[in-house]
Amino acid sequence: MKIHKTAIVSEKAILGDDVEIGPFSIIYDNVEIKSGVKIEGYCEIGVENSFSAGEPIVIGMNSHIRSHSIFYTGSKFGDNLITGHRVTVREKTIAGIGLQIGTLSDIQGHCVIGNYVRFHSNVHIGQKSRIGNYVWIFPYVVLTNDPHPPSNVLKGVVVEDFAVIATMSVILPGVKVAAHSLVGAHSLVVKDTEPHKVYAGSPAKYICQTDKIKHQDGSGESAYPWNKKFIRGYPDSIVQSWSDS
Amino acid sequence: MKIHKTAIVSEKAILGDDVEIGPFSIIYDNVEIKSGVKIEGYCEIGVENSFSAGEPIVIGMNSHIRSHSIFYTGSKFGDNLITGHRVTVREKTIAGIGLQIGTLSDIQGHCVIGNYVRFHSNVHIGQKSRIGNYVWIFPYVVLTNDPHPPSNVLKGVVVEDFAVIATMSVILPGVKVAAHSLVGAHSLVVKDTEPHKVYAGSPAKYICQTDKIKHQDGSGESAYPWNKKFIRGYPDSIVQSWSDS
Amino acid sequence: MKIHKTAIVSEKAILGDDVEIGPFSIIYDNVEIKSGVKIEGYCEIGVENSFSAGEPIVIGMNSHIRSHSIFYTGSKFGDNLITGHRVTVREKTIAGIGLQIGTLSDIQGHCVIGNYVRFHSNVHIGQKSRIGNYVWIFPYVVLTNDPHPPSNVLKGVVVEDFAVIATMSVILPGVKVAAHSLVGAHSLVVKDTEPHKVYAGSPAKYICQTDKIKHQDGSGESAYPWNKKFIRGYPDSIVQSWSDS
Repeated sequence: MKIHKTAIVSEKAILGDDVEIGPFSIIYDNVEIKSGVKIEGYCEIGVENSFSAGEPIVIGMNSHIRSHSIFYTGSKFGDNLITGHRVTVREKTIAGIGLQIGTLSDIQGHCVIGNYVRFHSNVHIGQKSRIGNYVWIFPYVVLTNDPHPPSNVLKGVVVEDFAVIATMSVILPGVKVAAHSLVGAHSLVVKDTEPHKVYAGSPAKYICQTDKIKHQDGSGESAYPWNKKFIRGYPDSIVQSWSDS
Repeated sequence: MKIHKTAIVSEKAILGDDVEIGPFSIIYDNVEIKSGVKIEGYCEIGVENSFSAGEPIVIGMNSHIRSHSIFYTGSKFGDNLITGHRVTVREKTIAGIGLQIGTLSDIQGHCVIGNYVRFHSNVHIGQKSRIGNYVWIFPYVVLTNDPHPPSNVLKGVVVEDFAVIATMSVILPGVKVAAHSLVGAHSLVVKDTEPHKVYAGSPAKYICQTDKIKHQDGSGESAYPWNKKFIRGYPDSIVQSWSDS
Repeated sequence: MKIHKTAIVSEKAILGDDVEIGPFSIIYDNVEIKSGVKIEGYCEIGVENSFSAGEPIVIGMNSHIRSHSIFYTGSKFGDNLITGHRVTVREKTIAGIGLQIGTLSDIQGHCVIGNYVRFHSNVHIGQKSRIGNYVWIFPYVVLTNDPHPPSNVLKGVVVEDFAVIATMSVILPGVKVAAHSLVGAHSLVVKDTEPHKVYAGSPAKYICQTDKIKHQDGSGESAYPWNKKFIRGYPDSIVQSWSDS
């Protein structure tokens, strides 16, 4: 255990072996941090709020939370969570293993996230979002939820396995981004996409099958499904299953 | 008064009764915080700058400023200000009562904001903006001000009472968003809107009257004017006046 | 030297004369800060990472880094760097003199930036970007780099001297924004622009020559080239060279 002398750590917090807490960070009461987790400086873990219903924040093993990040109580993360700086995660965010959350991203809570999902910088995940496995969401993407703002009706976005949403796109409330589909940059997605298809524009329209996009590595091969080519950071067993399928 | 032992509070700052100051926060000299205000950790209140002309920052009664927020001198907020995390508010921002400012929002100062305005996360309010009462501005919206950037000509955006601007929209300099009008998500508004009408697209075009949008609560009623249906967080007297009108 | 008593400064860091370090800031080992630099509170300068190859972070003379900012090792800035709050700058960012980086901007590193470049708030500079001199990039602009995300192919954006990219625009990977060209707000730039021309839309199309845009100062003159009219903050010698050319 390596707790910086300027950190403020509640005696009620449950900390596993080899946890590191950086300078000026605060760990509140209702917190469970598993072994091998590193939390950098200026973080707040376990901010209380009325929606958490007394549930703790749980951070899985070997996670790494970068500086200036804020996590509320009432959420649960699998092992190997990695964040950038200044991440904000509110209550009732339930995430699988290997989640990556980029700098400045804002997860509004009340959402479900699968395994090995990657949010790049400055992503905004609205409440009620449901996100599958191996999803990629790029900078400045917003998943919305209110069909006629402001209102009390919340219809979360659904993003299925292996889907990719490129920079600065907005997904309208209740829309499903289908498995292995690709949303181009700066798009507004107003209706469900279909698997293995590309959509772009504002409003987004069908462009082509994803396998029509050629990889610019000189191979002449298709760039999609992306997981046939891009395997950085995924466990060997998963990469093996991809190449077998 | 509950000032955390790690907070740095100037003796010149004027603090009302029952003010709370969180860990690692700094309250500078030229600050007036009214009674019942809670300021969370890592905040800076009263950052000096050459444009404030010696004016203090004034925070109204019973406000709640969440962690990592920064307020410059020379601004004034009515009672019941509520902010998210990492909010930045520069000088000469004059706001009424009940303002809500979401996480990561950046108010550039030199602007006027009415009563009960709500900025969601990551909103950017350019200098010279004039915002009425009961306005809603959603994530990643930018109110611009320079008609031919970069220049010294600043033409602020005007947003009238009850107007709603949805996610990731940009309002061009000097444009007026009329009372009760609605700007759809991911739009670029290049000219004035008219009251009770919907605009969307890039550039934004007239779509329909707002009352043509049906509420998805099963009632079959119109979703707009939104304040006939959505009253969460507004004082009873105001809600009563809305239902009477 | 004015180091706040709550700041944590490594004995290995090299600090010039008259350096100021604000409250709760951390200066790590591999840091060189030239004379006259002011670093405000809650900053981290010299965050280590595996890509820096042992190179220090170097901050040029008379720079001013505002609070809550984070700089990694392996980058180098000329004199007179000025930042807003909550700026994040990763490794291998090589910048000239007089760079301004607005609040919340995120520079992903592995990029080259010329002299007197100005990033407004919340700009996202992707890896491999190459930016010339006197460039302006406005809020919520993203310079992308991956032609078929996610992949290992990175094609940085090129922005040439005096180019201007307005609010909420996205530049696709490998695209060149030519000298003195102007990208309108809320645009998606999918191919190279030509000098002294205006582009706007999603996808962006050619609109007109930049000199067709009239300045709204009542002079009846063209608003572009902008540097014939807007000189605030540039050194006299440079302004003189502009008026002579």
